[in-house]
Amino acid sequence: MGGDHGARVTVPAATSFVREIDDARVVLVGLPEVVESELKRLGERFGDRIQLRPAPEIVAMDEAPASALRGKRESSMRIAVDAVKNQDAHACVSAGNTGALMAISRFVLKMLPGIDRPAIASFLPTLRGHTCVLDLGANVDCTAEHLLQFAVMGSSLISAVDHIDKPSIGLLNIGEEEIKGNEVVKLAAELLKTSGLNFYGNIEGTDIYKGTTDVIVCDGFVGNVALKTSEGLAQMLAAYLREEFERNLFTKIAGAMALPVINSFRRRVDHRRYNGASLLGLKGVVVKSHGSADSFGFRFAIQRAYEEAKHDVLRGIGDRMTTIHQRAA
Amino acid sequence: MGGDHGARVTVPAATSFVREIDDARVVLVGLPEVVESELKRLGERFGDRIQLRPAPEIVAMDEAPASALRGKRESSMRIAVDAVKNQDAHACVSAGNTGALMAISRFVLKMLPGIDRPAIASFLPTLRGHTCVLDLGANVDCTAEHLLQFAVMGSSLISAVDHIDKPSIGLLNIGEEEIKGNEVVKLAAELLKTSGLNFYGNIEGTDIYKGTTDVIVCDGFVGNVALKTSEGLAQMLAAYLREEFERNLFTKIAGAMALPVINSFRRRVDHRRYNGASLLGLKGVVVKSHGSADSFGFRFAIQRAYEEAKHDVLRGIGDRMTTIHQRAA
Repeated sequence: MGGDHGARVTVPAATSFVREIDDARVVLVGLPEVVESELKRLGERFGDRIQLRPAPEIVAMDEAPASALRGKRESSMRIAVDAVKNQDAHACVSAGNTGALMAISRFVLKMLPGIDRPAIASFLPTLRGHTCVLDLGANVDCTAEHLLQFAVMGSSLISAVDHIDKPSIGLLNIGEEEIKGNEVVKLAAELLKTSGLNFYGNIEGTDIYKGTTDVIVCDGFVGNVALKTSEGLAQMLAAYLREEFERNLFTKIAGAMALPVINSFRRRVDHRRYNGASLLGLKGVVVKSHGSADSFGFRFAIQRAYEEAKHDVLRGIGDRMTTIHQRAA
Repeated sequence: MGGDHGARVTVPAATSFVREIDDARVVLVGLPEVVESELKRLGERFGDRIQLRPAPEIVAMDEAPASALRGKRESSMRIAVDAVKNQDAHACVSAGNTGALMAISRFVLKMLPGIDRPAIASFLPTLRGHTCVLDLGANVDCTAEHLLQFAVMGSSLISAVDHIDKPSIGLLNIGEEEIKGNEVVKLAAELLKTSGLNFYGNIEGTDIYKGTTDVIVCDGFVGNVALKTSEGLAQMLAAYLREEFERNLFTKIAGAMALPVINSFRRRVDHRRYNGASLLGLKGVVVKSHGSADSFGFRFAIQRAYEEAKHDVLRGIGDRMTTIHQRAA
């Protein structure tokens, strides 16, 4: 029940998801009075498919992960992750503190065999559809083996969500030639070539939005910069376009004429449709919504978690890791 | 006389620059017959301010830097860089092979005292104006000292071009807090704090286009990915917008109505205005134009070189390095 807007966003998203998806059930974890009053406002009630698990504590958005992990065992975040651990829930979705969610998930759920660290994976729109990029900031210093593990996880995620058997994997680099890049990336390319995964080769920054590959692998520093640079550029372009349309009476009329087109364009690149970053590599499905997401956006994060659980992304990761170890042996 | 389009782009850009800027002179280095025929086409002739230096060889766009350096001592690129070395020219501008230009420049001109490696710096548009980002791909593995040197070079470039005495410097990271980032970035922040430069602190990818700082420092891998990701996103958004306006008769009419606004927007974000990457840290001014630049774009690369030479960016770098060494002593 976290995030910047709390239950007013998460509860309507959850109930609308349950209404739409027949086999979905949701456990709302949070302060009971808050959840109840929000359900009442929505005209919803508890039942078979909407349940409540009371949690007396809250992890603050700026709380240190260690403090959330050790000091808040009754927080909604902890109880939600515990529910996944105890198989009371197939997945946990949170709009709360990312560092705390990562620390709690890792402590409670533990890592899948062969995976050293969790990675943050998200989908980005491309000219051809979408692509899955990871890591987006959980790991700032990566080895080639970590990048290989990210490829396994991203591949499994795309298989689960898009039902592609062997998703193509691009290694984010500063040129397509094999001699390009730093030592870690060069070694990762060698590992990927013999991994049995569908390795496309090196790709460049431009390839992200071209949709050259289904999965893009990079260290968390690079991935985070690429993602946030994109956010910044999109905001600047939107601001410039707005200014140009508001320049004078003529441009305002042109803007009014073009509004349906602009709105259609906006829907197409609406970042809320890409809300929901998967914390991959854990023994459980955990999805992080953007803290500022509205209920339209939060619903997409729930959808992502639902698909990961339904199509067993965890088994996909396990199977691929087994194959890699067998090939290496 | 390199680049994808050769003299048909570079010669008109150079002659138009000379016509506009009273104290500018240009030495055209290339195959004499090609340069002469292009001048003739333009109705220009050689004279005091437009000179020719014949070069019988050409560095191919895909030639290995080592081959260009060792095997092509009579190439236009080599002769142009030699002219800077011999003080026959204040700066060299090329649209040719980047790796070869870097190798030849480094070999012929050598590095400024205290600078270990050249960096590639370019300007990007922001909500507030522009910002100088470096390194954009020359150095894939950087130490904290390299990042400090980039800060010195970027600061000197902004001082020369924008006449700002103490440009603000941001260190590209994955969060603003001091604990964020990898070890190199954390150490670089410590060096920058005591450097006497105007260090703003850590910035994130979103800050690039916000224009939070005058200069942005990062390693070449991260900088290259940020730049190319931006290119890819801009291309995707442009393609989407075009598609939306071409959807049906109504949207086409709206598009025609909005055309002056869209064109004005396009002019504002026209990447050709940002053409010209400075190879900084050398004992000479070298500017690399995008290989595919047209003459409108190439002119901006000449302008950049002119300003760097006129406002002595090299002395700016030297002075700042001296200050840093004195403070450290």
